[in-house]
Amino acid sequence: MNTNNILIIGAGRSSSVLITYLLNAANELNAIVTVADSDLQLAQQKIDKHKNGIALKLDITNDLERNAAIANSTIVVSMLPAHMHLNVALDCLKYKKNLITASYISPEMKALDADVKKAGLLFINECGLDPGIDHISAMKIIDELHAQKAIITSFKSYCGGLVAPQSNDNPWGYKFSWNPRNVILAGQATAKYLLNGKIKYINYTNLFAEAEQLSIKKMGAFDVYANRDSLSYIVPYGITKAQTVIRGTMREKNYCKAWNVLVQLGLTDDSFVIDNVNKMRIVDFTHSFLRGISLQQFIKKCGYSATSETSKMIQWLDLESTAKLKIVSGSPAQILQSLLEVKWKLNKNDLDRIVMHHDFEYTLKGKKYNMQSSLARIGKNQTHTAMAETVGLPLAIATKLTLQGAFKKTTGVHLPILPVFYTPILNELHNVFGMEFNDVTTLIK
Amino acid sequence: MNTNNILIIGAGRSSSVLITYLLNAANELNAIVTVADSDLQLAQQKIDKHKNGIALKLDITNDLERNAAIANSTIVVSMLPAHMHLNVALDCLKYKKNLITASYISPEMKALDADVKKAGLLFINECGLDPGIDHISAMKIIDELHAQKAIITSFKSYCGGLVAPQSNDNPWGYKFSWNPRNVILAGQATAKYLLNGKIKYINYTNLFAEAEQLSIKKMGAFDVYANRDSLSYIVPYGITKAQTVIRGTMREKNYCKAWNVLVQLGLTDDSFVIDNVNKMRIVDFTHSFLRGISLQQFIKKCGYSATSETSKMIQWLDLESTAKLKIVSGSPAQILQSLLEVKWKLNKNDLDRIVMHHDFEYTLKGKKYNMQSSLARIGKNQTHTAMAETVGLPLAIATKLTLQGAFKKTTGVHLPILPVFYTPILNELHNVFGMEFNDVTTLIK
Repeated sequence: MNTNNILIIGAGRSSSVLITYLLNAANELNAIVTVADSDLQLAQQKIDKHKNGIALKLDITNDLERNAAIANSTIVVSMLPAHMHLNVALDCLKYKKNLITASYISPEMKALDADVKKAGLLFINECGLDPGIDHISAMKIIDELHAQKAIITSFKSYCGGLVAPQSNDNPWGYKFSWNPRNVILAGQATAKYLLNGKIKYINYTNLFAEAEQLSIKKMGAFDVYANRDSLSYIVPYGITKAQTVIRGTMREKNYCKAWNVLVQLGLTDDSFVIDNVNKMRIVDFTHSFLRGISLQQFIKKCGYSATSETSKMIQWLDLESTAKLKIVSGSPAQILQSLLEVKWKLNKNDLDRIVMHHDFEYTLKGKKYNMQSSLARIGKNQTHTAMAETVGLPLAIATKLTLQGAFKKTTGVHLPILPVFYTPILNELHNVFGMEFNDVTTLIK
Repeated sequence: MNTNNILIIGAGRSSSVLITYLLNAANELNAIVTVADSDLQLAQQKIDKHKNGIALKLDITNDLERNAAIANSTIVVSMLPAHMHLNVALDCLKYKKNLITASYISPEMKALDADVKKAGLLFINECGLDPGIDHISAMKIIDELHAQKAIITSFKSYCGGLVAPQSNDNPWGYKFSWNPRNVILAGQATAKYLLNGKIKYINYTNLFAEAEQLSIKKMGAFDVYANRDSLSYIVPYGITKAQTVIRGTMREKNYCKAWNVLVQLGLTDDSFVIDNVNKMRIVDFTHSFLRGISLQQFIKKCGYSATSETSKMIQWLDLESTAKLKIVSGSPAQILQSLLEVKWKLNKNDLDRIVMHHDFEYTLKGKKYNMQSSLARIGKNQTHTAMAETVGLPLAIATKLTLQGAFKKTTGVHLPILPVFYTPILNELHNVFGMEFNDVTTLIK
């Protein structure tokens, strides 16, 4: 029997648990695990001298290097940013390798479906946390409800990568447990969802201002805002009779109002680059977005009084500090990120938390029910974060199962919404890793 | 002497006066004028059987067709949208042809400067109205002031393509006299300018809300908002001691507040496409951007009462009409455009107007002055609009002068800000076409 070569592309923050899992499973899978990254040291750190691990320096934009790495592999797990998957996917097609990612399916990826099927291959996408565990856990409930002939009338699903309550020591209730750039740019694409039977579009200008509050028993009070295109999941989920379908992002209570001030001010703008930033003071940067009024007056203009929590949260960021900025050049969003990476640093002893919450309404035998299904997970430490765990485990389990032939009959470009995917993944998350959703069903009328 | 072949690419709305001018000058220039467009009929209409004119069907994305047309020409005038000039410019380099455009110089165009110089060629850009006559007229004043040893401390420059007062019969004071898509998407790039010595950035969310009012004697009351990157003109204009530098766009009074409501609502969003639009009613489209409140309530939320002019202007658009939409699919911006093309149609007997206004402050021999320089121009009819005239004439004159060798010593990628360009262009605009700026200088202190 030939040795399997699992190629993991990308050794960043969210890859640690994925890599550890697959290294631990290497013997069982008769596999070596190749971790490829542009930063060889980072790949070596993640392998940590494991006998089944190989660290590989890989420039993903170099066609020859990428081709060789993929040709040499048995299966590919791509942890690259979404827009960089396509070349990897094309190489996987060329060399007949299965592919697993945690990213949203792009139109280009979707367009490969027929070719992937024809080649007898399987590309599983959206198989991390969000998207990932949200699909997996929701679809199990949806299929169970449909099996009972229930009609799902409303589906809301929220997820957030947050800080653990015991490490929550700043007024924003937020620290970076994953790619900071994604946090800064969140919501810039117009969100689309279904509300009481009507399609709704909410643009960036209104998104954070109109965030709603969500209280989850034993977990706390959160802000939630609509995330990307919820409409595109209605048909794949089979919930075509639902009048409300919203997927959203969760932040600690009060976060969204304060973030909205930064959005309105223009600090999250990523459309142009400012040069010689390191010659500017933080206050100069901030004031370049103000015209004739102070930051405090701007906050007031956004609707928040000087004594409001929002105002305190903005003040805490020290945006009028006379200290110099540290990056050389960057967009306003990149400059803001450089400031928040200091303020929102996950410190050595800090733990992160992920929270996921589904809210269903359905009718069954003439009665109307609400069902809530919630998961919270706290990280073990700075490396084994809840984020790295919940992104990495579904990917790792899907990789293992693909290698073991569990999905042999399924080909094409997929989300993990079929029982063949979600059943064994959820079982292992639950039985081996103790990841358990807390479900509460209530009769409404 | 060989016959010159002037190739004009693009026979749209703004090309009519340009084409007529060059056809009329054809004998003097020993030239034929080739008008190339993807729509052959449109090109033929513009030529109107003139003996020196040739209409050419040209698919600009077809490399062979574009190569042949440019290889056959003596000089090229590109009226394409800005992002389509680059291939034309590269062909002009390859076949050694001079190039004239009315578009902003893109970074890619700018990067060709050394190659254009090396080839002994001249590419004149930003040579229409705005950009174009604004540069030409401002630079004449700036050079004259500098010759007197004046120090320019403030420069504000505004321009608008508007409707003539006698045709102004709708509450917006606006009808389309040029590319409607540019009007709908105006301002989406963050504006940058200098105000009292400080760099200011103003994002789309705030741009129209913070429009200022400008009153010009004998011309009327206008709204003005900052346009694109004013900072990039400080060095080319040589006004490095100015504390305020703003280039802006002009609309009739009240326009910006009402437009801001459409921006805030999300109707100018061009980032996603809605399908099956022709099955929707206008009211459904509008309400898909409202969440739990009526349009009237949204207007109020934006800060305008039910009896305000703003409210009336929005109501006049009939955005809650139960009529069906007519386009099949499109972005919100495209759908809004389809509605406004009906509402803001320049009717058969309507005339348009362009207004330009420069406002300088300078110190001279210890005294401080304000100088205002204004131009208004009313169109002749629907084809010979003020917009087509003021965009077309500078382009046409620059083309003629280039063919006549007036710029022989100047090579590279240019704006028309050197005296060699602006002096003869302004002279002809003034002496032949009666285009005259009204200048008023006032002693401030």
